[in-house]
Parts: sequence; structure tokens; C-alpha cells
Amino acid sequence: MCGVFGVTNTENASKIAYLGLFALQHRGQESAGISSTNSSEIISHKNSGLVIDVFKETDLSKLKGNHAIGHVRYSTAGGNSDANIQPLTARIGGVPVSLSHNGNIVNSEEMRQFLESSGAILQATSDTELILHLMARSNKKEFIAKLTHAFEELFGAFSLLLLTPTHLYAVVDACGYRPLSLGLLKNESKIPSWVLASETCAMDLVGAEFIRDISPGEILSIELATGKIESVFFNLTTQQSKSLQQAKCIFEHVYFARPDSLVWNMLANDTRFAMGEELAKNNPVEADMVIAVPDSGVPMAMGYAHASGVPYKIGLIRNHYVGRTFIEPTQNVRNFKVRLKLNPVRETIKGKKIIVIDDSIVRGTTSQKIVELLREAGAKEVHMRIASPPVKFPCFYGIDTPKRQDLLAQVMTANEMNDYLKSDTLSFLSEKQLLKVMQKFQKNTANENSFQENGGWCTACFTGNYQDEIAQQKGCGFIKELKNV
Amino acid sequence: MCGVFGVTNTENASKIAYLGLFALQHRGQESAGISSTNSSEIISHKNSGLVIDVFKETDLSKLKGNHAIGHVRYSTAGGNSDANIQPLTARIGGVPVSLSHNGNIVNSEEMRQFLESSGAILQATSDTELILHLMARSNKKEFIAKLTHAFEELFGAFSLLLLTPTHLYAVVDACGYRPLSLGLLKNESKIPSWVLASETCAMDLVGAEFIRDISPGEILSIELATGKIESVFFNLTTQQSKSLQQAKCIFEHVYFARPDSLVWNMLANDTRFAMGEELAKNNPVEADMVIAVPDSGVPMAMGYAHASGVPYKIGLIRNHYVGRTFIEPTQNVRNFKVRLKLNPVRETIKGKKIIVIDDSIVRGTTSQKIVELLREAGAKEVHMRIASPPVKFPCFYGIDTPKRQDLLAQVMTANEMNDYLKSDTLSFLSEKQLLKVMQKFQKNTANENSFQENGGWCTACFTGNYQDEIAQQKGCGFIKELKNV
Amino acid sequence: MCGVFGVTNTENASKIAYLGLFALQHRGQESAGISSTNSSEIISHKNSGLVIDVFKETDLSKLKGNHAIGHVRYSTAGGNSDANIQPLTARIGGVPVSLSHNGNIVNSEEMRQFLESSGAILQATSDTELILHLMARSNKKEFIAKLTHAFEELFGAFSLLLLTPTHLYAVVDACGYRPLSLGLLKNESKIPSWVLASETCAMDLVGAEFIRDISPGEILSIELATGKIESVFFNLTTQQSKSLQQAKCIFEHVYFARPDSLVWNMLANDTRFAMGEELAKNNPVEADMVIAVPDSGVPMAMGYAHASGVPYKIGLIRNHYVGRTFIEPTQNVRNFKVRLKLNPVRETIKGKKIIVIDDSIVRGTTSQKIVELLREAGAKEVHMRIASPPVKFPCFYGIDTPKRQDLLAQVMTANEMNDYLKSDTLSFLSEKQLLKVMQKFQKNTANENSFQENGGWCTACFTGNYQDEIAQQKGCGFIKELKNV
Amino acid sequence: MCGVFGVTNTENASKIAYLGLFALQHRGQESAGISSTNSSEIISHKNSGLVIDVFKETDLSKLKGNHAIGHVRYSTAGGNSDANIQPLTARIGGVPVSLSHNGNIVNSEEMRQFLESSGAILQATSDTELILHLMARSNKKEFIAKLTHAFEELFGAFSLLLLTPTHLYAVVDACGYRPLSLGLLKNESKIPSWVLASETCAMDLVGAEFIRDISPGEILSIELATGKIESVFFNLTTQQSKSLQQAKCIFEHVYFARPDSLVWNMLANDTRFAMGEELAKNNPVEADMVIAVPDSGVPMAMGYAHASGVPYKIGLIRNHYVGRTFIEPTQNVRNFKVRLKLNPVRETIKGKKIIVIDDSIVRGTTSQKIVELLREAGAKEVHMRIASPPVKFPCFYGIDTPKRQDLLAQVMTANEMNDYLKSDTLSFLSEKQLLKVMQKFQKNTANENSFQENGGWCTACFTGNYQDEIAQQKGCGFIKELKNV
Repeated sequence: MCGVFGVTNTENASKIAYLGLFALQHRGQESAGISSTNSSEIISHKNSGLVIDVFKETDLSKLKGNHAIGHVRYSTAGGNSDANIQPLTARIGGVPVSLSHNGNIVNSEEMRQFLESSGAILQATSDTELILHLMARSNKKEFIAKLTHAFEELFGAFSLLLLTPTHLYAVVDACGYRPLSLGLLKNESKIPSWVLASETCAMDLVGAEFIRDISPGEILSIELATGKIESVFFNLTTQQSKSLQQAKCIFEHVYFARPDSLVWNMLANDTRFAMGEELAKNNPVEADMVIAVPDSGVPMAMGYAHASGVPYKIGLIRNHYVGRTFIEPTQNVRNFKVRLKLNPVRETIKGKKIIVIDDSIVRGTTSQKIVELLREAGAKEVHMRIASPPVKFPCFYGIDTPKRQDLLAQVMTANEMNDYLKSDTLSFLSEKQLLKVMQKFQKNTANENSFQENGGWCTACFTGNYQDEIAQQKGCGFIKELKNV
Repeated sequence: MCGVFGVTNTENASKIAYLGLFALQHRGQESAGISSTNSSEIISHKNSGLVIDVFKETDLSKLKGNHAIGHVRYSTAGGNSDANIQPLTARIGGVPVSLSHNGNIVNSEEMRQFLESSGAILQATSDTELILHLMARSNKKEFIAKLTHAFEELFGAFSLLLLTPTHLYAVVDACGYRPLSLGLLKNESKIPSWVLASETCAMDLVGAEFIRDISPGEILSIELATGKIESVFFNLTTQQSKSLQQAKCIFEHVYFARPDSLVWNMLANDTRFAMGEELAKNNPVEADMVIAVPDSGVPMAMGYAHASGVPYKIGLIRNHYVGRTFIEPTQNVRNFKVRLKLNPVRETIKGKKIIVIDDSIVRGTTSQKIVELLREAGAKEVHMRIASPPVKFPCFYGIDTPKRQDLLAQVMTANEMNDYLKSDTLSFLSEKQLLKVMQKFQKNTANENSFQENGGWCTACFTGNYQDEIAQQKGCGFIKELKNV
Repeated sequence: MCGVFGVTNTENASKIAYLGLFALQHRGQESAGISSTNSSEIISHKNSGLVIDVFKETDLSKLKGNHAIGHVRYSTAGGNSDANIQPLTARIGGVPVSLSHNGNIVNSEEMRQFLESSGAILQATSDTELILHLMARSNKKEFIAKLTHAFEELFGAFSLLLLTPTHLYAVVDACGYRPLSLGLLKNESKIPSWVLASETCAMDLVGAEFIRDISPGEILSIELATGKIESVFFNLTTQQSKSLQQAKCIFEHVYFARPDSLVWNMLANDTRFAMGEELAKNNPVEADMVIAVPDSGVPMAMGYAHASGVPYKIGLIRNHYVGRTFIEPTQNVRNFKVRLKLNPVRETIKGKKIIVIDDSIVRGTTSQKIVELLREAGAKEVHMRIASPPVKFPCFYGIDTPKRQDLLAQVMTANEMNDYLKSDTLSFLSEKQLLKVMQKFQKNTANENSFQENGGWCTACFTGNYQDEIAQQKGCGFIKELKNV
Repeated sequence: MCGVFGVTNTENASKIAYLGLFALQHRGQESAGISSTNSSEIISHKNSGLVIDVFKETDLSKLKGNHAIGHVRYSTAGGNSDANIQPLTARIGGVPVSLSHNGNIVNSEEMRQFLESSGAILQATSDTELILHLMARSNKKEFIAKLTHAFEELFGAFSLLLLTPTHLYAVVDACGYRPLSLGLLKNESKIPSWVLASETCAMDLVGAEFIRDISPGEILSIELATGKIESVFFNLTTQQSKSLQQAKCIFEHVYFARPDSLVWNMLANDTRFAMGEELAKNNPVEADMVIAVPDSGVPMAMGYAHASGVPYKIGLIRNHYVGRTFIEPTQNVRNFKVRLKLNPVRETIKGKKIIVIDDSIVRGTTSQKIVELLREAGAKEVHMRIASPPVKFPCFYGIDTPKRQDLLAQVMTANEMNDYLKSDTLSFLSEKQLLKVMQKFQKNTANENSFQENGGWCTACFTGNYQDEIAQQKGCGFIKELKNV
């Protein structure tokens, strides 16, 4: 998970980009960076850390120019080397290009080997660098052609922004795994000031208006001098497989997005409330209260309470100062890491039957500890209700899931999971129920035409139905090898 | 506002203190520090910044010893000099003493002048240093006598911890303005492992059990070698005025405390829910939804919704990454500083009649901007409901309020405030209603005996009834002078 | 100017490398770096700054392995980007390779354009990176073949070390511009512990014995597992021009080398003393004392004094704390930058006739200011004696000389220079005299066979006779263009 | 050893102070600091490290005002706490005072105990803070009276500068142990711009002219507004003992001062040359060459060579990049720490009879290793000649000598020392010879009147004749106790 942000034709573009990244901070706390251009050169500043720590006032003032892109990075996947911090900048055909990438290349290993064997020297270990190398090696002359050329070689998820001294490009892969929205900043110039952001909450903060989402397979180019926009689409037939369909990551709504963001034109807060409602309808249980595992569980719990009539209470408090603390569990403190983040409200919990709403179960370790914390705080019954299906398969499209065998639902049935978590009861929203919830909201969205049977969602982490063969093989095919992974 | 934490007789005392401070981080983000003792010397590490930034693993490992105290500091009052970062350590009568202080000395200016004129060299500009100097100058021989001697000279709020190589002292001023709780860490030794903390949420994190609050005027001493505790009380007759009464800061419950903390043995989450209920009963209004100004407004809004039957919705999202950002408002972005922290959920708000619950109005600037944000997001009506009385007077007991003339309620009536905020309606909980709410909870608390007529609360910020003459003069008396302050 | 150091088959190889770099610090204060190998991977640590600042103890302890190379960097040529700090490491054909380079590639601009146009993405701006890219692109299979292949494309000076998990390679260009010596560290293992260093003073510090110099055009490979060494030589016929001859940089003896170093097996302290003697024989003048411009002028002045009978005195004191100070001249202080480095001993100078010995005149600004300082200090006469010929042409082989038109001797005759410097008299050692001095020492050196007419020295900075066409064109040919450089 | 510098009535006073400290860097590399005043407040910047590292350009620009003092600190005596870094600033009687101190208080331990027992809280562990506390406690009204009052309590060496918003004070103790010179900066204002510096080399760098030395017992005050200077002298009768005499530290000439400094109006380079001459006359030996232990040994060796006729050669090269390196000796490298600093020139030394000139022998460990290095490099004979008497007693006046029992001359006769060092012969200059040398130069100095029998020098480190009783007792008296020190 990462966040990208771009803005054109505004004074202090780097300040606007800073704010955009600030609003997207929940999508990545590992590192932050901004590249800006004054139409001749590209200037960058980036470092590991939070947005407010990476940029001092003098840093922003050095990022001159009216156009900028930025990036916040979540995962340490690809190694935590400084060389991986984005935006990445390189000179391609003499032109400086800066790139911010949200997503994950599925066939990066193969492309890396291919490039190294043909004499390329790779600096970073992230897959983002591959895009630049493939562009540099393209014998096409036009920049967009180089771009298309590069993406024809790559499978996976990429919602990305490219800044050159003359253009800002926004690109979304053919499946549209990750969101990328286009907006417009109010200004008094004749030249429009475009904004691009992973989530609309970033537009709210900078005072921009949401216009539309970038479509799957779209390359949107903004001519910086005029603000003119044009779109081309990848030639899908060249992508080896014509079977690629829209596959919006449903986890963006389940977990990632900020509740006040429109994601694919649906408000995350509302979809979560509705998931909670659906969960209540299908998985009722008698109890004294519904509590949430904050933050994403809060609207789900409120929805559950609303549909079930069981009152919603604050039963777990989240400590928002949690960061990269190094402290190891001590013998005095059980369930330490969960406690650092969540504290049960003993006086509320004590002697009560509790329904706990969480967004998902991945490894199960946190859920297990939450049950234990609640029992220690005196809960009489603990009923776990999960507002998404069991996660059985790893994600290769940008979400940092553990290996397949570490996914609790891969190795246990729902009953076994209930035993393992030591909850009184445990139920999940089924894939069908979840898709039904999403369908209600989807009627308003921009990309209706491209809907497939299931509404154009990627639910591979629940089903193993990956869109491309490489992921299919990695995720499901070679069961034998998986034992040793 | 600050937070203090202490622990005795446990291995890795500094690690436990680190965790305690981590849980108290909401009480102070300016600086953090820990002093520990191995029974011969006092070792300290402190710096400006958050707890996780101030302490690296090597820093903690240098803080050897089984006993430690710590401090997180909120305010820049007293200047932001490094010399003010606590714990402060000095050698008094040859004994090293380290001090963590939560509160504020009312007559610090007078004491500072007195000390300097008699040849003392003051390093810090905070009032905490005065305590050490007064102890150093005391001609008493016993440590506790020195301590009492010092406090006889000082008016104001002080909940503090003092660590020496042989003892840990916990002190609360005679009015008991600030909370300080005693707990017990489970261990397998015969020597008890005591914990002292500003709020019980810190005990939860380290796995300690709450025992009781330190009483107003109490000096509790723990002998480190044996774990034996003893209490003495200030000689109130020497405190110049016998009229001093218990005066627990009611704002701890209104705003400061973490909702999962017992503060004077009352759960902040519950008192806030009850304040919201009381507010609904006395100030009903027809509306589509109740929303909260997070975080302290959330239980209040839930209480309001519960009592009124108007549904509670998530209408404002708080960005938890807000920190010391330097960014100035830009012309593109109205209500910028509030937006950095709060984003209205446009899709929820649009076209609706909204009741907004906030804990208090101080300057009024934030409230005004929240109303404006909600109107911009399309709210049809905005009804402000405040779960505490208007703040009319400055606090001299540790809360960083603005000058008297900058308090909105000092210069406007409720009607004028409603006009100023541009809300449709505005109502407050009255002092009487607030105290009524608190009384329900108070029956369980330890200090029942000391209750005065109003339940032993300081409500001076609403009423101007300060406990001591100096505050009385500063806060109310010299109206003429205030114009020039 | 840079310094390189390598060591094999010794415990704590990185510590030995650290010491080697420490002894070579005078060859580069801009940055320092070490790469080590434990025979499987290459670990590096490098940064801008002095050796003692770049390496903390923990840094060295992370540089595990029995084999290491290091680098100190002088010039900011190629930009001061961190990406230029050496050793540079890349993966070539799957094998990690780390490179330390002393020298300068003459045709780097052309190679850079060629590589970028064929799709390479260059990170650094230094020419060292080109070597790695050319190796990466070579279709040869053997590592040495890749190396030879790369060097066939490059003109210029390169004394370099390459470390892989299996080998350490030492390479010197076909002209042998820069020194590189082989030594042996005493150890008790059967496997020899080889040392390679730019100057023998680094061998002295680590307790190694000088064995021989690496020859022009030699590629020496050390098999790390066995310590076995082998040499191959470049195929000179492929280097486009067969006319390339040995061209040892004579400035190493005039200025760069530490006086206690054997450079091409001649002691710099002795050659400088002899230059001073020769200068005295050919350019006598009556005076009260001979003084030196420290540090390289000191043995020259002692030689002049010895040959002339005029007593040697300390007349200028060098401040050894001079570093990268940012201070600008103030109006109060004339000749400020020279004064920061040199202070005349007024009491010694006053009223005296002075002979000042310096190693060379490049821009002339320092010399002019030294004359002025001495006159202000009361010198009656100032006779400048320079122990090398006038520098008329820029160096393209690794010395950071100014542009041609900024060389004083390029634009003035010796008489004009004397007027410009305001010295009473000024004389230089002629090229012939300097070569005569060097010839006396050369009889002992290892490379006798390769001596050309002039003894195999590069004196291009005095004569403009560059060894290769590209340098010839840059340095002498296009006079017209030079006006605009 | 430390260095102090002050300047008044000049724009950018902090820049001038920076340069002054830069020139005095040899007197202290531990920390550096500057305080400046714009006539209302005192601003300070200080840190551990070298002058060029402590001050960035922005640091200097914040040090506003036309008057400044600075300090470089050598020793870690008093602990290496940041609180000890000078200048120290405190508010005394409401007036901010900043203090730079060169020297050492002999009775600091007693004064510290006295102050703490009477209620003072001491922050630093250095003796400099005591001066401020004694001033703060003085009941005198006038500033100079407070100053005198404080110094009446203190024994020892103190050449110090005090800056207030209205005055700069220069103070030298009654014995005048440490130098402090007054100079005048050329300016075009009617108000003179005074300079005060530990050595005149700092005046040379800033372009100031040496006027005179501050006398023993003098308190010079400069009124900043007018530049008017006035002097008062301590009331010696109050200093408990009238027997205090001038006692200029002879080691300033033997070792500390930069050779281009006038110290008590004698050029250190000249006094050292003369010491070498005297040494040659009294301790001749047949040899091939005289070499120096650089840097202070160089003029001594030249003087020895001049008087004896034996030629002076460069036999040991000093590495000027030596700093606080953490590297420990390795098994491969004998005499490691000396080697880091000094490298013998093997080719020069080999097979020769060598006279080595050093300034002094303290512990003897370095001398022993130098002899060993020279023998390893092939020296046939090594004759040590020391240009000062054996150091038998510790210094309590600001020089960081080891404990008495670690002084080689305290535990061995000259013959035993020769055996221990493994030199062929060893001789010293006697105290009488050294004083004879100094007498030749002294005729020119300003303080002729105050000369005592021995010329007014402190030679206590050779003789044990300390000026004050406390030092006498510590240094010589209680031999029995010394065994256990």
C-alpha cells in the first residue's frame, strides 16, 4: 500500500503536494517524497519517516515550480533501502522523469533478471525502478509509446504518476486494482490546476473538487503549459491475455481507505456501515453491546448495532501514538503488542456479553489477543463478527499479506478458527454478501460499463481467483512448493 | 498539562516507565524523559519529541536500575528551552533528586524573583526548578521536611514524583487539582512493585492494578529497598489560608483524560456519555443526526444520541498524523488549520440537519471553522451542543488556556456566540448540570470525606472562583489591567 | 586526486582498510568509504566527510569479512552528489562488484552520452560509474575479459581496485599516471595477506611491507580463497593508439604525496630536498633566510638552504585545523583565505631579505597573497623560488586544475608573473632540471625497462604534450573555443 | 588548557570571535562556544566539537551584536557533560553574564561543597560555574566588587573574560599563570574595537594589533558603549597569603603555544630554537642527523642542529588528521597509537645515528614508542634530547597532567629512564638552563617590574614549588596518601 498525489499549474505546488501526502499518510508511514518541476528541471526531496518529519520548511521552499508529484510508502517490501524511497527519478532519452507508484508488479523477479542479464545496473530493489529501465530501453520515440511499451511487459497493479518538465502522466493498470482519482483545484488562472490522488480525502484537504476516477488501462496526460488533458488506453490485446477484467481491490473498502474518502466514487464510511448491517442480518447473536476494533471497525460496528438493535459502545481504545517502537514484550505484560495499540475499557466490558466487530482476520494473532484482552477485562461472552470473508490467499497486487501458510483461514475451518481465537462464536460476511453490499453503492460509479459479473472487484484474497497466470501460479498452483516457502 | 509515571522494584524499570509514558502521551507531546536509579546514582535521558522518538533502545538500556520516574510535557509555557525538559535532577544536600511535575505553580514569578535576589542561579524557566531550589535552601534536615518546607511557599497545582537513590515520593497539592493514582505491578518478589501514574490507562498498559488515588495534601513515600509506603500530609494551617478545599480539575473529565482512564476513580468515557445525555435532556433540537467533534466529543455525542433518539453518525474524521507541522494556510485553502485535523464527510452531511457535539468552547475559533466546514459540505442546519459551560476565566493550575480577553465567553453572551459561530443554535451544559452529572459517579470514589458542597471540583474556568488569592487576583480582580495584558 | 586501499585475507579487514584510508587522508577529504566481503556478499559503508567522521565503531563491525577495499575522495568534480561517493557497488552478471577509482576518464562525456542513448540509467555523475556500466554491457563471459573490454573504451588515468566475493583486482591504465603499490601484511596463516595502496605510507601504518608497484597496463588478480596472484596486461594495440607510453604524474612528487611515501619507489621527501638543491644551484640570490610554504615546501626549502648556505627558518605557520569553513572574507581582514591557512611569523620576517620556496604556481592567487603577507610583516625583500616549472596546461588525469585561461603561466611570462606577484625576483625549476632531479632517483625503481626518453613522466601540465588525442585537443588544440570555456 | 577570545565594537563580532577561536583551536578541541551581546541580551551558541563543526553560518548569524566572547575547551576534566561547555551564562542580580575561563581553580572541591551545603544547585561539574555562583551570592552591589569578592575565595589559575550587556571584563589571577593579551582591531569608528586573546596568533588572523598583556591580578573593564577601558587590581592582602608571586606557566613556551604567538611578549618559535641551542651546548653527542618530534620539537631541533653543526633532517612525519579515532590497536600493528600520529621516514633513518629532540617527557610512553619505531626503521643509534627538565609533579593550574605516580621522572632517575626508553643516551635541559634561555627574551616584556628571582615563572611541574598551600599539599605534601590516589 502506498499513496500518490500530483498537482499542476499552481503556485507552491510542493506545498499542495505536501498537504496531499499528509492526508494520505494512512496509506504509508515508511517514507515520503515530493518531486517538482519548474518546467526545465526536476527537483526532489524524500526520506524515510512521516510526512511532517521528512519535510522541513526549507525543503519545501527548494522544491520550486508549479507542478509536483508525491508519494508515501507503506511497505518495506523490496527492502528498506533508501534507494527505494519514491518518487524515483531517472533521465530517459535525455529527459528527467520522476515516478510515484502505488501497487505491485507481479512479474518483477523475471523482469529484474532479464534486465540484469542484458547489462542494466539496478540500484533499488523495488519494482518501481523496473518501469524506468523498461522505458529507458524502449526504442520507441514518443514518451507515451515508451510508457505503453514498458507496461506491455509488466503484470500487476500500478496506479502511478510520472512527472517530466512538460507533462504529468497518470496511469492505471488494465485491471484497475488501485484507485486513482482526478480532481480540479479552484484557481483564477485560465489554465486549469489538476489534482491526482489515491483517495479523495487528499482533495478535500487542498480544497480540490473530485471530477472522476482514472479508468483501468488509461494513460492520462496533462500538458503542463496549457493544462490540456488527453487519454489513451493500453492495447489490451498485447497484454498476452485478453481475459484481463476490471478488478478493483475490495480491501480498499474493507480496510485501507480513510472513511471520508470516495473510493471508486463510493464513501468508505457508508460501505462499511452497510457491511456491518449485512453482517448483523446474517449473523445475529444475543448480547449486551456491540464494540468495534478501531478504526475501520467503527462504522461496521455502528451498522451492526443499527441493524441488530444491540447498543454500540466504546469498548476498545486505540492509542494513536503507536509508531515504530522497538520495545519487546516483557514478562510482566501479556499480549503486549496488541496492548500497545488497543486498551479494553474494563469498566464497560466487565460482566457483559460482547459482540466485537473487526474488518478482517489475516494471521489471526491480533484477533486472538483481542479476545484474550476482553476476557481478562471481565467479558462474559465474546462474539467475533468479521465484516469480510476469511482471507485464504496472499495478495500480489500491493497489499503486504503474509505467506499463504500464515493465513489463518488457509489452515483452519471457521470452527477451528473459533476454537483458536477462543471466542464464543465467530462469523464472517460471505463473499456473496460482501459483493451484494458493494453492488448497492456501485450504481453511482463512473465505470459502470466495465462491470463484470461480480461487479469488477478483485476478491482473490478470499477466492484465489487471480486475474493473471503468474499470480495464479504463485498463489494457488504449486501447493507442494508452498510448504517450503 | 503533563503526565507523570513512576515504578519501583522491577527489573527494567526504565522499560516499564517508557510504556507508562507511552500510554500518557496524550497528556504531552512536547518532550519526554526518564530518570532511573540503581540505588546509588540517578541516571536520566530526556529530549524534546514524542516518547518513541526520544528513547532509542540503547537509551533505555543505559537507564539502569529497578526504580524509575518519567515525564511527558505538553506545554511550551515556561519557554521551550531544553533546560525545561523533565525530569529535572539536582543534588540537594549531597543527594541526587529527580523530579517530574504535573501542574503549575501560581506564585512562580514571585518565588523566582526572591530566589534570584538571594543569589540562586536558575537554569530553566519552568516553575518546576523552583521546587528544587526551595528544597535546596531549606534548613530542615529530613528530606520530607525539606519537601514540606518547599511546598509551604508555593501555591498552585502540583502532582509530582521525586526519585532519590533510596525513595520515591509522590506528592499532590492540598487542593488535589491534578490526578495521581497508585497501583501495584504483579511480580513474584516479596517486595511490592509500586506504580504511580497520572491516569490509570498507563497502569493497564504495564499490567498493573489500580489501588487508590493519592489524596490532596498527601506526601506518599516509598522506601525502595523494602517497598514500604508511608504517608504524611501538609500542615494546612501553614499554607496561609485554611480555606483551601479539594478542587479536582473538572476539565480532566471534560477533555484531557483518555476515555479508558479512571480519573478520581470515574471512567472518563462514562462521564462523557452522561454529559451528552444530560445535554440532550436540557437542550433538545430536531435534527437528522448527531455528530461528534472527535476524540473527546465521541462518547458525548453517543450519549446525546442515546438520550435524544436522534441517530449518531460519523460526520467529522480526525487525522491522527497531525503534529508539529509548519505549513501556513495558503490562499487556496480556507479554514486550513482545522482542515488539517478534521475533515467533514460531505456525503453524510449534505442536505442534513446536524447536531454537533463538542466538549468545550475556549477561543471559539475552531468551533467557528467547524460550522463553516459543515456548511460548505452542504449541512442544512448546524446546531452546536457543548458538553460543558462557557469557559470565561483562565486556568492557573496547569492548563494552557489563552489570556482572559481571548476567551470567547468572556467577551460575548451565548446569543452573541451563536451569531459569531454562525450556528443555527448553540447551547451549553450549565455548571450545575455538569456537577450533577459528576455527582452520580462520585459515590464510588475514595475521597468522599473531603467533598465540599460542589463535590470538590475546581470549576474556576467557568466561574472565576479560584481557590487562592493570587489566582483570584490574576484571574478576576484587576479588570483594568487585563486590557493591556 | 583520490586514494585507494585494499587488503585480503586478514581478520577485521575493514579495520585495516580504515587505517589505510586514514594514512591516505591527504589524498581526499571529501568522502570516504569501505566495501568488504565475507566471500558471499559485499557490504559497504560510505559517506561524505573525513575518515574518522564517516566510520563509527559499529559501522566497521558491520563490515564483516576478511577482504576489503576503501576509497578517499578529494574532488567535487562530477558533482557532490552522494551517489558519487566510492566504492561504487553494482551487480554485474549476477556478481556483486565494488570499485574504488583513483584517476580520471578523459572521454567520459562521450561514453556517458553513448550509454544513455542506449538505454542505461546512470545514477552518479562521476566517471567511475561508466566503468561498471561498460562491464555490465560487455558480452564477454570471464570477469577479466569484461574488465579489459571496458578499459578498451576508456582513455585516461585509472588506478583502481575491484572487489568481488572471490577476487580482488588491481588495475593501472596503460600510461600508469597514478601510483598503486603492492605490499604484504605479516600474518601467521599460509594464505598471504596482500595490501594495495596509492602510497606506501598506508602500508607503514598497517605494518605491511612494500613489494612492488603495479605496472602500467597491468591487471593483477588475487584469488581471495588462496591468495594466489596473477597478472595480465591490456592489449595495447586495441587502445586505438600504439603511441601510449608510460607517463607517471610528476606532480605526485612535486606536491601530492606524503613526504614519507615511496612513490614509484622514490621517497617524496628526498626528491623534494633534491628539487630544492637544484633550484638553489640554478637560481641563487643573496638573502638572510630561506623559508618554506608548508607542507610540501619544507623539504624543498631545506634543500635550497643546504645547497645555498642561506639559513632555513620557520617563517610561515600552517593552521592544521583548516577545513570546510564557510566564513567569507570580512572587510577587516585582508588576504583572508590565505591567512586562515598560513600565518607569517612577524618577529622572524621583519626587516629581513627572504627567499620563499613553494612547490608550484597554478592560479597565482595564493602566491600573490603570500608575498603581500610577508611584506606586511615587514620583509625587506621577497624572492620567490618555485621547485617546478610554470603550470601552463590543465590536467585531465585526475588533478583538479583550473581551466586553461586561469593558469597564471598560460597568460603571463615569467617577468609578468614577477610583477603580478609583486615579488622582488621569481624563478622556477625548468622541466629539464626537474627531470634531471628525478633521474637520479629513478635508477632504483622497478620499471626501468619501460623508460622513455624523458624517464616516463607525464609533464603535460608544463608542456601540453598529452599522451592521447582527446586530451591533446581539449588541452591545446582549440584555442578559439577556450575563450568561451 | 583552553583558549579565550573577546572582541568589542565591531560589526559581526561573532564572526571575528569565530576566527579568533579558529586560530586558538590548538588550545582546545573538545568544544567551542561564543556569546554575543547587542547591548540588551546575551545570545550563545556552543557545542562539543571543533570550531568549524560547532558553528554553521546560520548559528553565527543568530549571534547578533557588536560584542562577543568565545571559548575553546581542551580537557574533559570536570566531566564531559554538555553543561560544562563554555561560555557559561547566568543571570546575576538580574543581569545576564557570560563567562569564558582558561585555567583551573585549585580549591574547587572545597568551594563546591560549601556552595551545595548552603543550598546552591550546581549544574555543571567544571570549576567555572563556581565563579558565577560566588558572584551571585556576593552581597556587594557593584559588578566589579562582586567579581573581586568571588576571586578572593578562589585559588588557582584563571585568565577569563566576562561579557555583560554593558561591559567586557578581562581578569587574570594574581600569579598570572596563563597568558591573556589585549589588542586593537583597526576600524573607522571613533569607538575603539578591543580584542582579547589567549595568544597573539588569534590577533594576527583577525587583523588586530597586539597592545599589551593583562597583568597578574588585573581586572580590565571595557565599557561597551564608549570603548573606555579601566583597570583595578585584586587586593592581594585579602588573598590569605601575601607571598603570591608572578608565576607564568613555562610550559606555554615549551609546548602549548603556537610557534607564531607572542606569549608574554616572547615569540614561542624563538624561545624553542634557543632551548634547542642551549640543549646542544650542554648535551652534545656525535650523530648523523638531528630529527624532531613534531610539531613543537621542530624549532628545538633546528636550534640544536644550528648550535651543534649536526644536520637537521625530517625523520618523523606527523599525520594532521588525527582526531578522536576509536580504533584499538590490532595484533598486526605494534605501537599503534603513536604510529597513527607519527610515521618514521624509513629511508632517511636507516643505518643512521639519530639525535631526537622532543619538548618534554611526561608519562614516557610516547617517547618509549618513538625510540622503538626508530629502531624498527633501522636507526643505528637513538639519542633522546629533551628541551625541558624532567616533569616530576602534577600541574594544578590548568594543564591536564597525569597523577603524580604516573609521571616517569617521579619514579625513575635519568639513568633508569634511559634504560626504560631503550635510548642510547638521554639528556634534559635543567631548570636553570631553561630559565637562562627565557631570561634572554624577557628583557623585552611588559611586566619587568614584577620579576622575581627566577624571572616570575611557574616551574612547579619540575620542582614541586607551588605558589599556594593547597597545591603544595596536593602535589607534594602527603606522600603517603599519594600511593592510594
